[in-house]
Amino acid sequence: MHIITVAREFGSGGRELGKRLADLLGFDYYDREIIAAIAEKHGLSEGYVDYVLENHAWTSLPITFHHSFHLPVLLAEPQTKLISTQREVIEKIAAGPHNAVIVGRQADVILEEYHPFRIFVCAAESSRVRRCMERAPEGENLTAHAVRKNMRVIDKNRAKSREFLSDLPWGSPASYDLTVNTTDCEIKALSEALAAFLRCRLDLK
Amino acid sequence: MHIITVAREFGSGGRELGKRLADLLGFDYYDREIIAAIAEKHGLSEGYVDYVLENHAWTSLPITFHHSFHLPVLLAEPQTKLISTQREVIEKIAAGPHNAVIVGRQADVILEEYHPFRIFVCAAESSRVRRCMERAPEGENLTAHAVRKNMRVIDKNRAKSREFLSDLPWGSPASYDLTVNTTDCEIKALSEALAAFLRCRLDLK
Repeated sequence: MHIITVAREFGSGGRELGKRLADLLGFDYYDREIIAAIAEKHGLSEGYVDYVLENHAWTSLPITFHHSFHLPVLLAEPQTKLISTQREVIEKIAAGPHNAVIVGRQADVILEEYHPFRIFVCAAESSRVRRCMERAPEGENLTAHAVRKNMRVIDKNRAKSREFLSDLPWGSPASYDLTVNTTDCEIKALSEALAAFLRCRLDLK
Repeated sequence: MHIITVAREFGSGGRELGKRLADLLGFDYYDREIIAAIAEKHGLSEGYVDYVLENHAWTSLPITFHHSFHLPVLLAEPQTKLISTQREVIEKIAAGPHNAVIVGRQADVILEEYHPFRIFVCAAESSRVRRCMERAPEGENLTAHAVRKNMRVIDKNRAKSREFLSDLPWGSPASYDLTVNTTDCEIKALSEALAAFLRCRLDLK
């Protein structure tokens, strides 16, 4: 059973890369599905769960949280409940019978004991801004400045949320097995090469 | 014509990885050969050239050096001559008729216009110390403390020498196409997977 985790800078194409890898390798793919499972368990909307986990849950936790993950007193907090359920959902995927690619959600840290293959996807900021603007829904008319600002906030939150779980910093090459720079890359071609790497590395058929 | 550059943290196994990649892909391999060519041109010993380029040449240059690389006045300095010859030797390899792997020597920056595929090899410090101690010549009896100290000095010099040539920092994932973490890895197996990646990525036969 193999788990591949994909963490990524916002706008780097990491989600597309994760999806393509899952398709090419015949792995299950998890991204929004995790949010949906958490939302269902707590009777909340997916949008709310996503918002809380991406923006607020971590920053409101006491600094000692990662040393006391299972303290019932902390688990009573509503935000902490979401984080706890996220961990349960992700561990269930890893304990399941299928190979899987999991994008985001600090799965690389949560599943440390399962020894996932950890990929980080990055790109030059200019390339990430371009990618975001190309993919924005028609009529949204985002400025590069607004995209850049939003991007920095999201990545700061991702880095912060990792801080609570691990001593290895978000985005640092030592925290992952492979770090891929997608600047000026076509994700499709890059995914095919990475699939070739992983077939060999994980000894897949 | 393809060039693969391999920059690396000291003790990460980057040199072995570069050599294995060259063998697996049928590329020429350059590492000590560059030092030998510089030494021959200037009638100096390889040891001296290596020592100067690895430790002293860059730190003694004026901070404006990278803006004025071809100023004859700077080229008159003996250390600058070595750096200049290093550039000539590396550009000659890139302009030559053969695919090549070049390990170290800031080749990724020097050959920017040739668009090399840039690999950075890193590993956890504990893993690098272990690798160095295992490979030390018999009877050398290095302590982990001494190895760690030496390792930090060398990597600091590598980072510094890059600073003079590029705004993209040494070891930062944005400076390379692929960053590989060799912590607890067998370099042989990792090289085979990377060769599969590169065959696909560079469209090699």
